[in-house]
Amino acid sequence: MTTAAEIDSTHQRLKPAEVRTMIRNGALSMPTTGFSAGFMQGNLAILPEAYASDFLRYCVRNPKSCPVIGVGEPGDPSLPDLGDIDIRTDIARYRVFRDGEFEREVDDLNGVWRDDLVTFVLGCSFSFESALLRAGIDLPHIAAGRNVPMYVTNIETRAAGPFAGPLVVSMRPFSAADTIQAVILSERYPLAHGAPVHIGDPASIGIADLGKPDFGDAPILADGQVPAFWACGVTPQMAIRHARPDLAITHKPGFMLVTDMLSEALPSATARPTAGNTAGR
Amino acid sequence: MTTAAEIDSTHQRLKPAEVRTMIRNGALSMPTTGFSAGFMQGNLAILPEAYASDFLRYCVRNPKSCPVIGVGEPGDPSLPDLGDIDIRTDIARYRVFRDGEFEREVDDLNGVWRDDLVTFVLGCSFSFESALLRAGIDLPHIAAGRNVPMYVTNIETRAAGPFAGPLVVSMRPFSAADTIQAVILSERYPLAHGAPVHIGDPASIGIADLGKPDFGDAPILADGQVPAFWACGVTPQMAIRHARPDLAITHKPGFMLVTDMLSEALPSATARPTAGNTAGR
Repeated sequence: MTTAAEIDSTHQRLKPAEVRTMIRNGALSMPTTGFSAGFMQGNLAILPEAYASDFLRYCVRNPKSCPVIGVGEPGDPSLPDLGDIDIRTDIARYRVFRDGEFEREVDDLNGVWRDDLVTFVLGCSFSFESALLRAGIDLPHIAAGRNVPMYVTNIETRAAGPFAGPLVVSMRPFSAADTIQAVILSERYPLAHGAPVHIGDPASIGIADLGKPDFGDAPILADGQVPAFWACGVTPQMAIRHARPDLAITHKPGFMLVTDMLSEALPSATARPTAGNTAGR
Repeated sequence: MTTAAEIDSTHQRLKPAEVRTMIRNGALSMPTTGFSAGFMQGNLAILPEAYASDFLRYCVRNPKSCPVIGVGEPGDPSLPDLGDIDIRTDIARYRVFRDGEFEREVDDLNGVWRDDLVTFVLGCSFSFESALLRAGIDLPHIAAGRNVPMYVTNIETRAAGPFAGPLVVSMRPFSAADTIQAVILSERYPLAHGAPVHIGDPASIGIADLGKPDFGDAPILADGQVPAFWACGVTPQMAIRHARPDLAITHKPGFMLVTDMLSEALPSATARPTAGNTAGR
């Protein structure tokens, strides 16, 4: 009999290319949490080229909520910087938006893709959460199998063209000592939202009731714990809704792009030309 | 009698807005090294909107050589994220390029500005060099009043649209112990090119003769020192020449944009909405 722990272990050991091939062939359709341990997973945003410049400027102006780890060429579904990827098929579940409104979910983009689409991949919080767990810091929402609570704040992001809106944050509670550690450890992962944007009083960033998140599940908060708030990948999704492009595509939350990028590689290494690029020159 | 040291000290204490006002009024026209100590200075690149999306994608793909600290709106010469700036007048000396070729230098952009131009400001090496000096690490080119030596490498940057070309590096030599410190200290300033891209053997990145840099002045290298190579802000200038836009504008080397951004503020703080943005909400 195969136990859940054995399945988990198998998932962790699968190479990113193996996970993507299974997804591409329709053999895997589930959230990617726990797959390909040690490799970055990414949030997806696909937009028409007419919106691409404004959206990229929005991301550059708001790097804590929108850490860009990959950008495709207009009309090109490949992402060579992140692996051997066809973005039309290599995520298990997509969400399609028309004029800023949710239209439907699809398993691939073969009937949706257009020659003017530009793909953006943004880092997600998995790498910094792994670092906290390795340091012995408890993340109660993971232990409880819940989604992290997310809140719309009264902090405006920096707008770019039609992209604008509030900063959305995720919340994780810690003891004071662990809060200090969490600040230091998460700052090491700027492509995974980096250090918190706020700690302590929820009201001062416009959160009226910590018990009622705008997205995700209700928090598990013990006495004396300090809530710590991180910039969240839902922020760009709200900016996209605000911009109302005729077509926008995202992943279904939890169904991420599994990339070949190592989580522990320094962020600067994403800019380091590889030996392979220079051979023979 | 006013000594050079007193003049230097005055320069250091000028606020960025004071420096920019003097430049705007034509009262100051010299390299900005040493002005407004503690504030970030930036490299300038201005391009037509038709090239802006490709260039920003180029920067995002090559963040070590092209760390974006500000982007203007198309046709808008202000840069509110970096201070009360009119980019047409607030740099002392500009260089104008037509179809990728140098045309002339000008003192302001009033006769050059167009409604389709987009301004990019990229971080420069000043902040990490200051950090090395404060840690007691000698930078011989500064002591000698020379420019840092710069070299074209055999490493290709990641292209985006028409923007492509080799990585250009600057070189600073250290003892082995100081090289280790320099790696650690410079990594803290990702908006100032971050950690080196290479240390040691120049030939392995395509530099045939360390004594003959492609830009800047010849190096001052002592026996037993290790050359350390950083991604350099000349890289995007070569990519712009490669793209051959009908119009491109840069600063004259050394005549930088003095911004209100504090050098020691964490890079992530550039994404942190300020209290001023949220007042009254």
